[in-house]
Amino acid sequence: MSVIHPVILCGGSGTRLWPVSRKAMPKPFLPLVGEETLFEQAVRRVAGDDRFAPPLVIAGADHAGLIMAQLGQSDGARLVIEPMAKNTAPAIALAAALLPADDVMLVCPSDHHIADSAAFRSAALAAAALAREDYLVSFGIAADRPETGYGYLQRGEPLPGGFAIRRFVEKPDLARAQEYLASGDYSWNGGIFAFRAGHLLAELAAHRPNMARLVAEAVAGGRTEGAQFLPAAGPFAAIEGDSIDYAVMENTARAAMVPADMGWSDIGNWAALAEALGGEADSDGNIARGRADLAHCRDVFAWSDGPRISAVGLEGVTIIVSGDEVLVTSRDGAQAVGTLPGAANQ
Amino acid sequence: MSVIHPVILCGGSGTRLWPVSRKAMPKPFLPLVGEETLFEQAVRRVAGDDRFAPPLVIAGADHAGLIMAQLGQSDGARLVIEPMAKNTAPAIALAAALLPADDVMLVCPSDHHIADSAAFRSAALAAAALAREDYLVSFGIAADRPETGYGYLQRGEPLPGGFAIRRFVEKPDLARAQEYLASGDYSWNGGIFAFRAGHLLAELAAHRPNMARLVAEAVAGGRTEGAQFLPAAGPFAAIEGDSIDYAVMENTARAAMVPADMGWSDIGNWAALAEALGGEADSDGNIARGRADLAHCRDVFAWSDGPRISAVGLEGVTIIVSGDEVLVTSRDGAQAVGTLPGAANQ
Repeated sequence: MSVIHPVILCGGSGTRLWPVSRKAMPKPFLPLVGEETLFEQAVRRVAGDDRFAPPLVIAGADHAGLIMAQLGQSDGARLVIEPMAKNTAPAIALAAALLPADDVMLVCPSDHHIADSAAFRSAALAAAALAREDYLVSFGIAADRPETGYGYLQRGEPLPGGFAIRRFVEKPDLARAQEYLASGDYSWNGGIFAFRAGHLLAELAAHRPNMARLVAEAVAGGRTEGAQFLPAAGPFAAIEGDSIDYAVMENTARAAMVPADMGWSDIGNWAALAEALGGEADSDGNIARGRADLAHCRDVFAWSDGPRISAVGLEGVTIIVSGDEVLVTSRDGAQAVGTLPGAANQ
Repeated sequence: MSVIHPVILCGGSGTRLWPVSRKAMPKPFLPLVGEETLFEQAVRRVAGDDRFAPPLVIAGADHAGLIMAQLGQSDGARLVIEPMAKNTAPAIALAAALLPADDVMLVCPSDHHIADSAAFRSAALAAAALAREDYLVSFGIAADRPETGYGYLQRGEPLPGGFAIRRFVEKPDLARAQEYLASGDYSWNGGIFAFRAGHLLAELAAHRPNMARLVAEAVAGGRTEGAQFLPAAGPFAAIEGDSIDYAVMENTARAAMVPADMGWSDIGNWAALAEALGGEADSDGNIARGRADLAHCRDVFAWSDGPRISAVGLEGVTIIVSGDEVLVTSRDGAQAVGTLPGAANQ
């Protein structure tokens, strides 16, 4: 049986984790949970298991240096430099075109946290088995709250180790999200996929023929430099960017999902990071990174890269001190951090 | 009629306004409200009016440089250097011993804000008139809330421009403070006094004979250096420190008060400063000093001496960035700022 090729996408900007996540040093390359960066965790999650090949990383040129440094001793890892960001479908298609057509690719965002690597690998093996049968497989993340910020997958007929997908739902309103949670029939679409590389390209050619053609041209005109592959910028620039969900998953007749309950978080904002760091909280729910004195505080998250933070009488407030920026936000306000002038005008 | 001698006390530490107020640069010497420092305002409040003499300032040696710089062109101002802090009674007695016995001294803390200087001067003239009749006069600040952190004065018999004081009450509990406010019979003890200098010394000799003797010795053994007077440290060190209220006001038979409604604030903590700065608030009640982006915030007070503050979704929170310290506090928490490790261990 052929190996599974991890494909690690490094496209996210992570502006909602500003000011720690910045354009030059975005979210995947920061040690947000534990000692390793989210990117290093994504690489290590499938390392040391010979059912998984070395990873293929897709990123912009700006972050190539960070990636090479953080890949470290990952023998055989390759880096594909996107000439520009075109959303997930072209990035995944680039990877597919560079892999053996009959091998399975496992597409992983680099900016998520997964607490349970064993559960991840188990779901990945189930997904790969379905992908070999030419299903296009999405991980269905076990929902534990009526989240309105994610896409949902509704289960259909059972398949070995998973289910057909009956329906994709984009960010529902709260009432609908509560229904979905109560029904047990819906999972979050976590943006983790398994495809047979050749099959993904065939489906893309069926549903987005222009994109498929331009990706093929970008690969044909590209060049290899050591561990890096640089697609031709001309054809890639002509692509109309789209997500893999819109371009392929919602159009195919063979969409499937594998359930995954693995301590997943997209660390989508400071409140989500505080939740992922819950194990570090003191008995009042406070979490401190760096110098912090917290008095009469509950559920406060204080993070400083230098100056001391002193806080009194706060509840559910996040305080971030990074470089010359100080961010203070409520739990709900964390959603809006990306729209602050400091985050938006980097 | 003799002039009134302003005596400006610079003893407060202002730890509750940490981290902006620090040991080396405490509250009186900071421009907290408007362009001038509280000390400069205290000097200017009685300047340019020939019924008031140049001020006599009492302070520790640590702040002599700041005071001389901020006194600027105050011709005739004098500075008395306390060898060590001994509370208000010895400081006031030092000043009394250096002034003509028949002149009136007007004792003013340097760390309060008074919005209405004309009302202050009017009350000062009324207090001076009573002091010339050998009343020991305290300003009775118009109370506008059931404050539990202050001392109260209860009005007695009417006197010209004021009242005898029936009773002194130290920091009452909330129920009592609410009664006082409802009765209209009580004012706050603002720590502003008028005495005939010789009468103050006579009352001190009656109620605290040791203190009176040691102050006289400290003055007799002191020396003048330009505009500064340095009392002898030996006798001053032997004094058992006490407040003017405990040492004299609560013991005299001739305590009086003049009502003063003059936009007074002791700027006792960050919440009080925010209130004093209310005129600078935007339509959501937010006040910003320095670079600040406030989104979905109400009644937020942001102060930075450099780094940008970004805040989202907060209500009633104060954010102070000063040097290498970041303070974030609720309105109620502001009371406890002085007990934070950063403020307490300077």
